[in-house]
Amino acid sequence: MKEAARQARAEGHLIGFVPTMGALHEGHLSLVRRAKQECTRVYSSLFVNPKQFGPNEDFAKYPRALESDCARFDQLKVDAVFAPTLEEIYPSGFSTYVTVEGLSDRLEGRSRPGHFRGVSTVVLKLFAIVQPDFAYLGRKDAQQVAVLQKMVRDLNLSMQIVVCPIVREADGLALSSRNAYLNAHERRAALVLHRSLEAARAELIAGTRDSLEIQNAMRAVFEKEPLARLDYAAVVSADTFEPSVHVGGASYVLVAAHFGKTRLLDNMLVEPARADSSELDFHL
Amino acid sequence: MKEAARQARAEGHLIGFVPTMGALHEGHLSLVRRAKQECTRVYSSLFVNPKQFGPNEDFAKYPRALESDCARFDQLKVDAVFAPTLEEIYPSGFSTYVTVEGLSDRLEGRSRPGHFRGVSTVVLKLFAIVQPDFAYLGRKDAQQVAVLQKMVRDLNLSMQIVVCPIVREADGLALSSRNAYLNAHERRAALVLHRSLEAARAELIAGTRDSLEIQNAMRAVFEKEPLARLDYAAVVSADTFEPSVHVGGASYVLVAAHFGKTRLLDNMLVEPARADSSELDFHL
Repeated sequence: MKEAARQARAEGHLIGFVPTMGALHEGHLSLVRRAKQECTRVYSSLFVNPKQFGPNEDFAKYPRALESDCARFDQLKVDAVFAPTLEEIYPSGFSTYVTVEGLSDRLEGRSRPGHFRGVSTVVLKLFAIVQPDFAYLGRKDAQQVAVLQKMVRDLNLSMQIVVCPIVREADGLALSSRNAYLNAHERRAALVLHRSLEAARAELIAGTRDSLEIQNAMRAVFEKEPLARLDYAAVVSADTFEPSVHVGGASYVLVAAHFGKTRLLDNMLVEPARADSSELDFHL
Repeated sequence: MKEAARQARAEGHLIGFVPTMGALHEGHLSLVRRAKQECTRVYSSLFVNPKQFGPNEDFAKYPRALESDCARFDQLKVDAVFAPTLEEIYPSGFSTYVTVEGLSDRLEGRSRPGHFRGVSTVVLKLFAIVQPDFAYLGRKDAQQVAVLQKMVRDLNLSMQIVVCPIVREADGLALSSRNAYLNAHERRAALVLHRSLEAARAELIAGTRDSLEIQNAMRAVFEKEPLARLDYAAVVSADTFEPSVHVGGASYVLVAAHFGKTRLLDNMLVEPARADSSELDFHL
């Protein structure tokens, strides 16, 4: 992979990179399509990274579909797929870690200790191997994107992260490889994530700017869904992921919940429509 | 710096990099000369990195000599000197750290908690900015070299670290920017570092392979020098920096001591002369 990318760089190609854990869905494919539009070489990776899973999480059962994933990348004319083994990424004695302090400790980081350390470490390695000009990430994992953007900035990496929209099912459920875990009841219940974001949007449209009120409206939606166990509903500054008391500038409304043994995320980006008005734009 | 290095890379240059904290001495200059021999572009950096100093260490008084340092780099035809400000390297909100676990916790890391985290973080940043083919480091800081070699390997960086010999004064004292702190009495006392390594060498030549015996011989040398306060005398595997019980393969004999307020290091690399004999080569 290093050698292929090095040669493409030497030939003057603009390199796009789509890191994934595989079990591809339309969300991943939308990243590849965007990369193909903007770059002359597109590489993807397939690697289920054990270091971003907690000891009681779903590393062992995380869906793996190497052959069909490769076929889908092939259809989209990805120039190379990097699918390293565990031993190639973490050889015996591996002990170097990248941590984005602060940002990694809140929300997802609080629910999943060590998660973002695993993410930033493996992604720095992948970035070092591929050395892309652009890396394409989905906004569904908004905090992950923020952690990696901060890593790129703090470590002076010569590349940019391109954040792509959430892809949803027709009924609003955000695509996730983990949706495959849901049974029919849980699948219906999981719509509460999207409904809670709609409730937050309705509050904001009605003029509410107090974060607590918005979170309460979201919680009320969850209370009507017995199959869901809310982990957090939060409103944070889009730049820092610090909790907002009052929705002012660009913000994320974030939600995480359990449905049986499956933990799912969703979010909505809220931005001032124009500098001179209090109107908001919503990106679900 | 990024742009200059990017352009040199695009032109096919082989890039050598010599990171320093300035206050240059012949040791640093020997790194530059080696880089000039092996590379077609040579860049150096001057940055006194606060994150590798402990709260009670000498960051504030560490010698700074920007003008004369630049003049010396100029004489050696260094192609560019990167001398960033504190704010450029650590802008407000900076929070991403690289840690090489295990290796960073022993010896120097034990005496100077957080030291190697500061070193690996700033050097990764410098490597990301310059993206050299080769980085030249002095063997005087043997554990630092080992930490950075492990970082390069673990994080899949596309570069190599070239380790260069220790440069010594005529009387045996290893060159260090911190030698400038010593008064005349301490300067004489500091020769105990080199003498203790000579004592270790004498033990090894006499056939001693037990690390404790070697360390005891070194300690005995220190006991005769009242102005020295020994921090550690150790024998470690050159690969892992794990303590050796018995000197077998390539090893470092390491010593650190205080002379008044000044803390100095020295070491000797010991290697089997040939695979088929018990004879040793010594690199002081």
